[in-house]
Amino acid sequence: MAAKIIDGKSFAEGLRGRIADHVERLKTEHGITPGLAVVIVGHDPGSQVYVAQKAKQTVAVGMHSEKYELPETVSEAEVLALVQKLNADPAIHGILVQLPVPDHIDSKKIIETIDPAKDVDCFTPASVGKLAIGLPGPVSCTPLGCLMLLRDQLGDLSGKHAVVVGRSNLVGKPIAQLLLRENCTVTMAHSRTQDLPSIVRQGDIVIAAVGRPEMIKGDWIKPGATVIDVGINRIDAPERGAGKTRLLGDVDFAQASEVAGAITPVPGGVGPMTIACLLANTVTTASLINGLVPPSDLTA
Amino acid sequence: MAAKIIDGKSFAEGLRGRIADHVERLKTEHGITPGLAVVIVGHDPGSQVYVAQKAKQTVAVGMHSEKYELPETVSEAEVLALVQKLNADPAIHGILVQLPVPDHIDSKKIIETIDPAKDVDCFTPASVGKLAIGLPGPVSCTPLGCLMLLRDQLGDLSGKHAVVVGRSNLVGKPIAQLLLRENCTVTMAHSRTQDLPSIVRQGDIVIAAVGRPEMIKGDWIKPGATVIDVGINRIDAPERGAGKTRLLGDVDFAQASEVAGAITPVPGGVGPMTIACLLANTVTTASLINGLVPPSDLTA
Repeated sequence: MAAKIIDGKSFAEGLRGRIADHVERLKTEHGITPGLAVVIVGHDPGSQVYVAQKAKQTVAVGMHSEKYELPETVSEAEVLALVQKLNADPAIHGILVQLPVPDHIDSKKIIETIDPAKDVDCFTPASVGKLAIGLPGPVSCTPLGCLMLLRDQLGDLSGKHAVVVGRSNLVGKPIAQLLLRENCTVTMAHSRTQDLPSIVRQGDIVIAAVGRPEMIKGDWIKPGATVIDVGINRIDAPERGAGKTRLLGDVDFAQASEVAGAITPVPGGVGPMTIACLLANTVTTASLINGLVPPSDLTA
Repeated sequence: MAAKIIDGKSFAEGLRGRIADHVERLKTEHGITPGLAVVIVGHDPGSQVYVAQKAKQTVAVGMHSEKYELPETVSEAEVLALVQKLNADPAIHGILVQLPVPDHIDSKKIIETIDPAKDVDCFTPASVGKLAIGLPGPVSCTPLGCLMLLRDQLGDLSGKHAVVVGRSNLVGKPIAQLLLRENCTVTMAHSRTQDLPSIVRQGDIVIAAVGRPEMIKGDWIKPGATVIDVGINRIDAPERGAGKTRLLGDVDFAQASEVAGAITPVPGGVGPMTIACLLANTVTTASLINGLVPPSDLTA
């Protein structure tokens, strides 16, 4: 049996189309242009590429984009001052500080300074709490992307047993909250879980978010399950030439795709959803800040 | 096999003793008297009894206690003004608004007005988020009580499979977060869970928090498991006389105590822990507000 391959790239493209429609509607009906500010500190090449992509896609959907590139040597106080300025700026509805930041800056302090109303990455305690309680607000981007793919694939998720492997604050924990809200039975597994294969084998839905290449094997997957692979592990690929690398997920794709009902590839699965969901969140926060009901098709 | 009965009443008494020691230390070493304010609106008899108990126990451990009884007819604005006054009062380190409040008052608005630093019931989004992320702060009282009993019973919880039945914001969700932090594999089950008995049967630890009398049967329990029954269901007990009632947990105690390794009774299990943990939280917030490291034996 060969699993259906879930095409995150194509879904993200459709999502960006819907976002563009909502942006257009906000502009013409309400005079609001959603604005996203991205702050990057230092010169991490990966972050540079990622931030450039964000800015490009933000503009492409018709939103206002601001990008702040601060030198490696910037002081914590200067970063905090910039965040406060953006908090107060009515043209900005989403603030994202690209992590990691250099060691001399306390990322926790930066994050806690972001106005929760503009916290499009859902990093602040208040945003995390709203997500857990079920109050309206931004939803962590990658988990939101996973949820959208699952809904598209399965429709109603109610009663399904979801196994989330990995318990990070950015992915594992919020996706568990979202799946619980969808009426899934949710098991959170991690490095200390005993007999992980048999736990994973219970999942009608498996979310892999551990950051270890191909850790989850094909015979861990329940036949017909839907597998969402959040892992993006870059490994050496000398077979492609000297110094070349390639991306692997947390799931052994070749094995698992023989067993699963549907599976996301890496790359091209969850990855493309993350930036699209960041834009979706900016439409949500722009709506909430202006007292409007956020579009239901852009959030959890 | 007869399970060990976990004596929450006795454990809570010991906990109050430790709280009293910490209060004494805060007074003598730092000149701080932890202060708890309880606000009650209207005349719900159950709430009245509960609030009176809280005030009594607060004073008994040497803390400062304030009680505000507002009439049923009080306006929302007046309640909000009182909360803001308490937020600003340096003698108060914990604020608890007893729920439910009358229908004309928006409880969500009241809760969101409580300073998260004084949110000893862990009701505000910011407190809930801190709990999920793992930042220091108050921990929901009943979940904290469950965790203390489990640690006392089992020691290290790492690697154990905990099944939490019920997903309320006050109990199910926060206890799941706490158990995850203790390195348990955690399954969250609820009314939509399919084949609940077989899910519960996986639990080395079972937390029952559904509010349905004796729903969880003895043959759902894994032999030797530790069962924490959070349910407090009042049912008619005509056999005790006309109009009499008695309390039942969510677990069929007679059956489950033949199978479990240890189990909390109802009453006398989790119930007595809740107020003690409220006092513990007030010591925690009083410490944090004053820049002190909170006592590690009073929190999660």
